[in-house]
Amino acid sequence: MKVAYQGEPGAYTEQAVLNYFDNPETIPCETFDAVFALVENGTADRGMVPIENSLAGSIHQNYDNLLRHALYINGEYFLRVRHCLIGKPGVQRSQIKKVISHPQALGQCANYLRGLGVQVKPEYDTAGSVKMLVEMEDQTVAAIASRRAAEIYGMNVIEEGVEDDRENFTRFLEISTRSAKPAANAKTTVVFTLKHQPGSLFKALSVFALRDIDLTKIESRPLPGTPWNYLFYIDLLGSEDDTVVKKALNHLEEYALMLRVFGSYPQARNVVEEERKE
Amino acid sequence: MKVAYQGEPGAYTEQAVLNYFDNPETIPCETFDAVFALVENGTADRGMVPIENSLAGSIHQNYDNLLRHALYINGEYFLRVRHCLIGKPGVQRSQIKKVISHPQALGQCANYLRGLGVQVKPEYDTAGSVKMLVEMEDQTVAAIASRRAAEIYGMNVIEEGVEDDRENFTRFLEISTRSAKPAANAKTTVVFTLKHQPGSLFKALSVFALRDIDLTKIESRPLPGTPWNYLFYIDLLGSEDDTVVKKALNHLEEYALMLRVFGSYPQARNVVEEERKE
Repeated sequence: MKVAYQGEPGAYTEQAVLNYFDNPETIPCETFDAVFALVENGTADRGMVPIENSLAGSIHQNYDNLLRHALYINGEYFLRVRHCLIGKPGVQRSQIKKVISHPQALGQCANYLRGLGVQVKPEYDTAGSVKMLVEMEDQTVAAIASRRAAEIYGMNVIEEGVEDDRENFTRFLEISTRSAKPAANAKTTVVFTLKHQPGSLFKALSVFALRDIDLTKIESRPLPGTPWNYLFYIDLLGSEDDTVVKKALNHLEEYALMLRVFGSYPQARNVVEEERKE
Repeated sequence: MKVAYQGEPGAYTEQAVLNYFDNPETIPCETFDAVFALVENGTADRGMVPIENSLAGSIHQNYDNLLRHALYINGEYFLRVRHCLIGKPGVQRSQIKKVISHPQALGQCANYLRGLGVQVKPEYDTAGSVKMLVEMEDQTVAAIASRRAAEIYGMNVIEEGVEDDRENFTRFLEISTRSAKPAANAKTTVVFTLKHQPGSLFKALSVFALRDIDLTKIESRPLPGTPWNYLFYIDLLGSEDDTVVKKALNHLEEYALMLRVFGSYPQARNVVEEERKE
């Protein structure tokens, strides 16, 4: 199974791919767009893309990519993000004066880094910043990235779990050219547009509320090229083959200017809920 | 009037500040958070922050900042974003081999840059990438940024309006420590949370739909620290002093676990609508 993902080896998405698939052959890509393109043209069997982080919010680019490409969502996966402080071999925490990483990772460790009293410098990638360490002479620079990134580049994990908020999870979507219709415990993702008039979203949501269909996520996006008209992305519990979901989507078509179903797929266990129960 | 904004001189936000305020004294800040802090502690009279781009979507960090700080929205402003290809003085377009800028700006000029056949390298800032040009010896590197950034750093605009989509606008918010209550033509921004149960958003939206109140924007954000519970941000037409809006917000309080009004302010003309009419 060839699986495309965005990032350098050692990126959090690569970890999600390795956890989710059995013995995948990973294909690293420079951009999310390339992931979608490789799946569409058959170079990759599957793609894995982040869609939502519990702290940072949705990865809007991938909503746009879903819209632009003729692919289906086949599954979802939640990854617990554990950031590590990574230094050159033999370097102690007290020696560190500067920390580099992707701005989002730096932001998620802001309190910790303030406590260290170090200078912070944004770079373009988490795993990429570990790769930069390798090439540096300077022993006082460290990076924030995954344990796997440290291992791949032969660097040293000085401290693990340095994120300020432990409830840091990313939700990934498995994408392919074929739709997967799970029998039970399904989630369905749809997108639609509405006429911009008072109450239009209220009417659209009524098709689900009147049928007691649970929505697990709603996201609005400006429609590219037509500012301040919105696309609405909704995740709902149920399969597009369930009678009640079918009826709701038929009803939604009465109000929607455009409606597309990205697929029904097995609902994954949310790691944070699991951890809370422990 | 001292106005804080995030970015280097020459950033698009600085342009918005200069267009919107009369003779402002600008205070550049490294982070959005610093802008909010300077307004809150009185170092700046006002802050100006981007909240939404017509192509890239919402700037979620600033929704989070609104929530964390006790400030009010006093106004909004729409800026047309016109990207320029900027080179060292005397350099021609045909000499350019590499282009640097913020990844979002590079993304918004992707087709244009593909046409040029150049290598693309993401940097952390648009105006900052022009500043980098100044320090470089290499004549074959260009940057994507505003005309103002080129002027400030003495660099040359090779081509203007190189964005792929002309409908590229950013909406900015004016923030201060005091609430401004406009008499007419008002917009109001609120945030609320709901119990996660089927139909809860539908009920919340009913308070506006039943009173024919027009919503111009809805945005959902995961609540930091409690994954997969959402904050809803809504912009509605009307002032919090209007009887009908007051009644709707009182009604919303019956369903909301938390409700906060960020203020009512004069609705700005949307530049894209203006241009369409011409």
